[in-house]
This record gives sequence, structure tokens and C-alpha cells, in this order.
Amino acid sequence: MAHPFVSLTPGTLLAPVPAVMVSCALPGQKPNIVTIAWAGTINSDPPMCSISVRKERFSHDIIRDSGEFVINLCGQEQLKGMDFCGVKSGRDTDKFAACGFAPVPVPGFTAPAVGECPLYLACRVTSVQELGSHDLFLGKVEQMGVRPDLIDEAGRIDFGKARLVAYNHGNYYALGEALGFFGYSVAAPDVLERRMKQLKSGK
Amino acid sequence: MAHPFVSLTPGTLLAPVPAVMVSCALPGQKPNIVTIAWAGTINSDPPMCSISVRKERFSHDIIRDSGEFVINLCGQEQLKGMDFCGVKSGRDTDKFAACGFAPVPVPGFTAPAVGECPLYLACRVTSVQELGSHDLFLGKVEQMGVRPDLIDEAGRIDFGKARLVAYNHGNYYALGEALGFFGYSVAAPDVLERRMKQLKSGK
Repeated sequence: MAHPFVSLTPGTLLAPVPAVMVSCALPGQKPNIVTIAWAGTINSDPPMCSISVRKERFSHDIIRDSGEFVINLCGQEQLKGMDFCGVKSGRDTDKFAACGFAPVPVPGFTAPAVGECPLYLACRVTSVQELGSHDLFLGKVEQMGVRPDLIDEAGRIDFGKARLVAYNHGNYYALGEALGFFGYSVAAPDVLERRMKQLKSGK
Repeated sequence: MAHPFVSLTPGTLLAPVPAVMVSCALPGQKPNIVTIAWAGTINSDPPMCSISVRKERFSHDIIRDSGEFVINLCGQEQLKGMDFCGVKSGRDTDKFAACGFAPVPVPGFTAPAVGECPLYLACRVTSVQELGSHDLFLGKVEQMGVRPDLIDEAGRIDFGKARLVAYNHGNYYALGEALGFFGYSVAAPDVLERRMKQLKSGK
């Protein structure tokens, strides 16, 4: 078989990735927001996340010195502000004010959550690793909160309502058609039919 | 202002995240595929990725002992196989054969890429960190390849054609409407209009 791939210079082409706002603060100072696409879940038990931040970003030293960061998931309603927080610097802009975002206290944290966002994960830094252009911060999720309007009658989080945004090679996208659920490829026919129907109806 | 968030038990709710197939192999043995959602870009220069793998997964020791892993981005056409590779174990299933995937050699790597996937990033492991349920593998991207049909007349990669899949809280989604490009919130009106038109037309 012929080699079907065209070789490329190595780059950052893993996609789609999340696009999240990371809020941070030092005691007695204005909080800041930095937009991050190099973010992910790295452990399930205990729940842990990582974010990678360029050393020259204003938020870098705040996160390093405070030892905490708050990941705010981003819905379509927050997209313009999220993009803005990715291009402007907290050195000369109060991003909460400029975007009209409400800083909301997180129990035990100096950094506030972004009040308009669907869900936040407040993380305590466990390590910082220098990788080159970015420093990799690992953190343990210590507090998590969800916007009340995303909880349905049954007490479950309705993630569809969050209208989350994905980042794909320089562009932001809505999540589109639901294609399947984890395990759908081996599900029994009746389970598959029932759950796919639920999924397509947005439940 | 009242606290607008409902507190939740900390969990792995960062979303959307990528859903990728990671291929791996030891010399002289059949290659394996494991599906990973705890994956991300962690550094731009040099390009680096991380994946988190449970110790009990068959691929865990293969990746640790070989010191390499290949991230294969997943399009809608590969979704059923990708889901299958997340629920079955390579201990008792030849996943390349079961899914009809072609193992394609990657220069300098023992692990093959998945021939059907839009793009692969072959990574050399630089560290392994025990976090609890998962081990975090960091890797440097050393080889990257793209399917030739994704390269357009101008020699650029047409990422829209890849039809990548996102993972959002247990379900797989197509990428939907294009909402903006990095920097759109501060773009000049003429740039904004031109680029949004391009984006909406899928270019």
C-alpha cells in the first residue's frame, strides 16, 4: 500500500480543542482573564486539568504566584468576550469590565469565576513545567459550579443549553449534529435506537 | 450580587475535548489503538502534546516501553471505529483488523498511523507522570502527516473536509456553524466582513 499521508512540518494541529477563559487573581488586585486553547482534562480521579500559558502573558505570573486558576467553559454568548480576552492584555485592560463579565467569588479561591459562563472548574496548581514557548500548569479541580439555568427538572446538567464553543485551527465553531454516545458502536440494537433518539432530540 | 453558580462535586467536565485515536506498538508485535479524550496541545514551540492513559489500559505499557505514541485525528467516517477502540481491549482484539483500519508506517516510529484518519501527530515521549487514575504522557511532535485529499488547490489544508469530531460530556458531535476566527472581536470592519464571509462559506 502506498503511503497515504503527506508529510508536514510538526505543528500544533491537534483539533478540535476547547476554548476556555481562565480567570486568575492575586490578593488585593484586579482579577484577569486569559483565553486558552491549550487546556485539557489530564486525570479523572482526582479530577485534574492542565493549561499551558506563555511566560510573557500577564496571567502567567499571577497563576504561578497565586497557585490557582479557574477554567470557565465558554458558550456562544460569551464568545466575543472570550476572543477579546485572547488578544488583549490584562496589563492595560480590565477585561472583566471591558467585556461586561461579572467576577463571582469561588469558595476558597482568590480568583473569581466568570459569572456569565456555563460552568467553572477552579483548580489548585500542583506543578509548573517549562516546555519552551509555554509553561504547563497542572491543577487539581477543587471547586466546580454550574449556572442554575443549565440544571433541568430532573436535576441533571443540560449540556446542550450551554452551547459550548470548540476551537479548530484558528476558528471557533458551534457544536453541531450529535453523532453518537460513548459505547454506541457496541450497544444492543434497542439501546442504540432509544439512546440515539434521545441524543438527536437534544436530551 | 447573588452567587449565580450551583456548586458541584469536582469532576471531569472540561468540554468540548478532542476524541482521538492513539496508535502504539512494540517492535515485532501487532500495533494497537486506544481512544483518548484526555489529550491536548501543551506547547507550541516545540510542538508538544499530552495524553492521559489509565495504567490498566493495554496501550499504557506499550506507550511507556516504546516511548512513543501517534495521535490520529478522527473524522466522522472513523467515528464508529474510534468508539469501538475506546470500549474494546487490545488484549483480545486486533483493532486495526476489526475496524478495517490500515496501519501506515511513520518514518522513525514503530507505531503506525491510522491510514483513514485525516491527520496524525507522531510524538516521542519526554516524560511520564503518575496522577492517580491516569498517567500523563508528554510528547514532542516529531512527525506529522495529512491525508492528501485534504490539501486544496492552493496547497493549504482544508480542515473543513476533515469533518472532525468533538467529545462533549459522553457524546460525540460534529462541528457545526463557524462562529468566528481568532481575533474577530477586534478586527477592522472590512476584515471582519471579508473573513466571516470566507468562514461561513467553509473556505
